[in-house]
Amino acid sequence: MGRVVVEVMPKPEILDPQGKAVVGALPRLGFTQFTGARQGKRFELEVDGEVTPEVLQAAREAAETLLSNPIIEDVVRVADASEESAGVSA
Amino acid sequence: MGRVVVEVMPKPEILDPQGKAVVGALPRLGFTQFTGARQGKRFELEVDGEVTPEVLQAAREAAETLLSNPIIEDVVRVADASEESAGVSA
Repeated sequence: MGRVVVEVMPKPEILDPQGKAVVGALPRLGFTQFTGARQGKRFELEVDGEVTPEVLQAAREAAETLLSNPIIEDVVRVADASEESAGVSA
Repeated sequence: MGRVVVEVMPKPEILDPQGKAVVGALPRLGFTQFTGARQGKRFELEVDGEVTPEVLQAAREAAETLLSNPIIEDVVRVADASEESAGVSA
């Protein structure tokens, strides 16, 4: 079973109230090193077989049509989840 | 200016109505290769300087406390955005 990760962020010029809430809360919790925050979406799409180039192409098309609103959002990443960099917490 | 990416997904056993809506809509739009979908969150946190190990550690702590609800969500990724794999769509 393969998995494709699609990530979508609000465009830089678009107001992001959720990000604003995060950036306001961080210093109150002692996280003073962060100067900005934006909040977007991460989708994981599953396929029965492997993540082929055709699957990635279909995921890109789905990302631009169903999973994002191109007026206010950018698709920042479409990738095979198995190739995801290890930077996992804990 | 550095940027840290924090990604959070609903735990596998938790109902994910947004993911269900996506997986229902995909075949209607002709994307028949996807058998499942989950929707989570992607945060981008900015720092003035570089993304040091201390910054990543603070981001991990913020991820577990402010940015996710550990009862229903998993932090799946905390990473320096500049090391993000290139798999970006178009």
